[in-house]
Amino acid sequence: MNDYARRTERIMQRIQELAAISETDQGITRTFGSPAWREAALTIQGWMQEAGLHAWIDNIGNVRGRLAAAQPAAKTWVIASHTDTVPDAGKFDGLLGVVMGLDVVEQLALAHTPLPFDIELIAFSDEEGCRFHTTFLGSQVVAGTFKYTLLDSKDAGGHTLRQVIHANGGHESQLPADALPRQQWLGYFEIHIEQGPVLYEKQVPVALVKAITGQKRVALTFTGTGGHAGTVPMDMRCDALCCAAEFILAVENTARQHKDKVVATVGQLQVANAASNVIPGAVTCTLDLRSTDEKMLLQVSNSMQETGAKIAAGRGVTFEWEDVQVTSPVWCDESMNALLSQSIEDTGYPVLSLTSGAGHDAVAIAAVAPVCMLFVRCFEGISHHPKENVELKDLTAALQVADNFVQRFISAHSPA
Amino acid sequence: MNDYARRTERIMQRIQELAAISETDQGITRTFGSPAWREAALTIQGWMQEAGLHAWIDNIGNVRGRLAAAQPAAKTWVIASHTDTVPDAGKFDGLLGVVMGLDVVEQLALAHTPLPFDIELIAFSDEEGCRFHTTFLGSQVVAGTFKYTLLDSKDAGGHTLRQVIHANGGHESQLPADALPRQQWLGYFEIHIEQGPVLYEKQVPVALVKAITGQKRVALTFTGTGGHAGTVPMDMRCDALCCAAEFILAVENTARQHKDKVVATVGQLQVANAASNVIPGAVTCTLDLRSTDEKMLLQVSNSMQETGAKIAAGRGVTFEWEDVQVTSPVWCDESMNALLSQSIEDTGYPVLSLTSGAGHDAVAIAAVAPVCMLFVRCFEGISHHPKENVELKDLTAALQVADNFVQRFISAHSPA
Repeated sequence: MNDYARRTERIMQRIQELAAISETDQGITRTFGSPAWREAALTIQGWMQEAGLHAWIDNIGNVRGRLAAAQPAAKTWVIASHTDTVPDAGKFDGLLGVVMGLDVVEQLALAHTPLPFDIELIAFSDEEGCRFHTTFLGSQVVAGTFKYTLLDSKDAGGHTLRQVIHANGGHESQLPADALPRQQWLGYFEIHIEQGPVLYEKQVPVALVKAITGQKRVALTFTGTGGHAGTVPMDMRCDALCCAAEFILAVENTARQHKDKVVATVGQLQVANAASNVIPGAVTCTLDLRSTDEKMLLQVSNSMQETGAKIAAGRGVTFEWEDVQVTSPVWCDESMNALLSQSIEDTGYPVLSLTSGAGHDAVAIAAVAPVCMLFVRCFEGISHHPKENVELKDLTAALQVADNFVQRFISAHSPA
Repeated sequence: MNDYARRTERIMQRIQELAAISETDQGITRTFGSPAWREAALTIQGWMQEAGLHAWIDNIGNVRGRLAAAQPAAKTWVIASHTDTVPDAGKFDGLLGVVMGLDVVEQLALAHTPLPFDIELIAFSDEEGCRFHTTFLGSQVVAGTFKYTLLDSKDAGGHTLRQVIHANGGHESQLPADALPRQQWLGYFEIHIEQGPVLYEKQVPVALVKAITGQKRVALTFTGTGGHAGTVPMDMRCDALCCAAEFILAVENTARQHKDKVVATVGQLQVANAASNVIPGAVTCTLDLRSTDEKMLLQVSNSMQETGAKIAAGRGVTFEWEDVQVTSPVWCDESMNALLSQSIEDTGYPVLSLTSGAGHDAVAIAAVAPVCMLFVRCFEGISHHPKENVELKDLTAALQVADNFVQRFISAHSPA
């Protein structure tokens, strides 16, 4: 049998090693395309090669490693997660699935397990979307659903996505060749921390995922009138920040009214040409809306747009609402989930089935292949934060479940 | 007589020439210590030298030009305004007083007018305080009231004030020598655009200033709990931006209740480690409070601090309030204002006496010398904005009044 203590320890060591690769001196920030992100990708490529995989970095910066089937012309089963982070992130978001996936696949390589399908392990380059304000760049390229209009998107520093691809040795003309052809897909499996409090509260180490929430990202602009903070009377102002503040509270209120069904977040806010003695003339901010109920997502979004327009009109402020990204809720594959459920039971844990409030690369892949996910408990449900943590015993539990699931999946696809 | 059409035209040309010196391609931004700010200072120094003044740049970056009295050991009368700007500023704020002051003093030099006092023309280096979030750095050095603890203040890029002084060829050890000794001060005169709508609405080109508003600048920090925007339910959040939004609306409400007596502005706001899919964990912002009623300023400030603490406590957010700067209301000198009033009347305009809602270098100088100011009408009262404008005919009016006032002031101090 495998030595789970040793394997778990190596997984944690690798997560620590990658955590030390950051754009910042303190904390972890690995934005898509940054030198730290590139260094992490090269490190992972090295580990894939050591594990006996044929490994390369594709044009969008995904690290990819293949283990071939016993027979040629087989379909491909993808095991994946992502390497980029939000600013000041935790260690486990994304990387846990990459490092655990690699360990599971390495066992198959070491054991020379005959495979009825190719396995491709992928460390996706951009899931968080922090740089270009859009998610799943890496997984969309692999799914073949990447939108080429995104190439001209600019980051905060004015660099286009095209320039970032070039700077990392890729070329946009090669992106179609990086997609897995539709007929080649067998399925997709992703291990990820829960990023929510349910497993922590229920004291269970793992869960399968029933569905992933639908999500809408909106870019908002409030344009009022700037002016001197000392000379314009209060009743003559069109203060863009006061207007945005009123909108932010309205968004919070609306989401609270749909408790447990909707979450809404204004995460970024900038005052244009801000100074402490200048009345804010223009404010831009983001709105992130999520629900597993697609109809409710649309309804709440429309209501917030109307409310924003009304608040702005009352203040003599112009209000612009731009839908940046909309993803529908995704339902995981029932047959893979049945195998996963058996694996969890086999390993001795209660079977929990959760919906994911966070988006995942599985959402992008679901457009072309059946997907499934295994959630791992994290401390207090905290994620996107330095306090993000996973205990060793939960890593071990997840590793045992994953091994069992992979063996079951291989058996299910092997000739009788 | 002077050719006012020619002089007004040259003043406008010089203002246009300085407006072209900016950190930005479009608009005008000349932050204290920036290369554009330095270039403007050197240009003004050149003009002072051409006008026959002994001109130099001091250690805080003030451009200073002197015209000597007929007798040695005379007192000094300072005519001044500032060269720095807010981001995306107008052309006239600060520079109008510098360029007009230079023109007035140049006439005295050309005419070899015997002076009963030294005249020092000063273009102050930092009035807006945008870089280090504190005002009057230039005028405080000349007044001898500069606080040396400010040397370690950092700008948004992490540069200290000390480093900025060094980078511009100055040294903090020389700052005391840049102050005019208390006994040397005779008085202070500043020409400035009104930056408010009164003269525009009353259709009058100039006004004397009775008092300058008291001002408080506060730095605020809201510390909540960051987290994943998709997985933390609305009722488990401590969102620092929602908390700040509630405070901003409370500030607006309180100031509106004291209509015409108080203005309050939150001008800058930053979300720490912001991303569209992360719940804001920490927000910093500024608060600018003004009133000519010192007691009311204190009362409103205390009330806002209490309200902020209450809002934050209700949301599980930590609230920090730091008074960055407090200036008391300043009353202009009655004897200089009497001469200024006669000059306005002489020149054929109605005499208006305003209070200034904007702070000015005169506030810093008032700690050591009697001060007076001449306000000039600006278009719709707009300032700190690219639309800031002054008409040629108002420049001419202000120039005539200033000439008349300077002659009266010289006469008043000349031996009978």
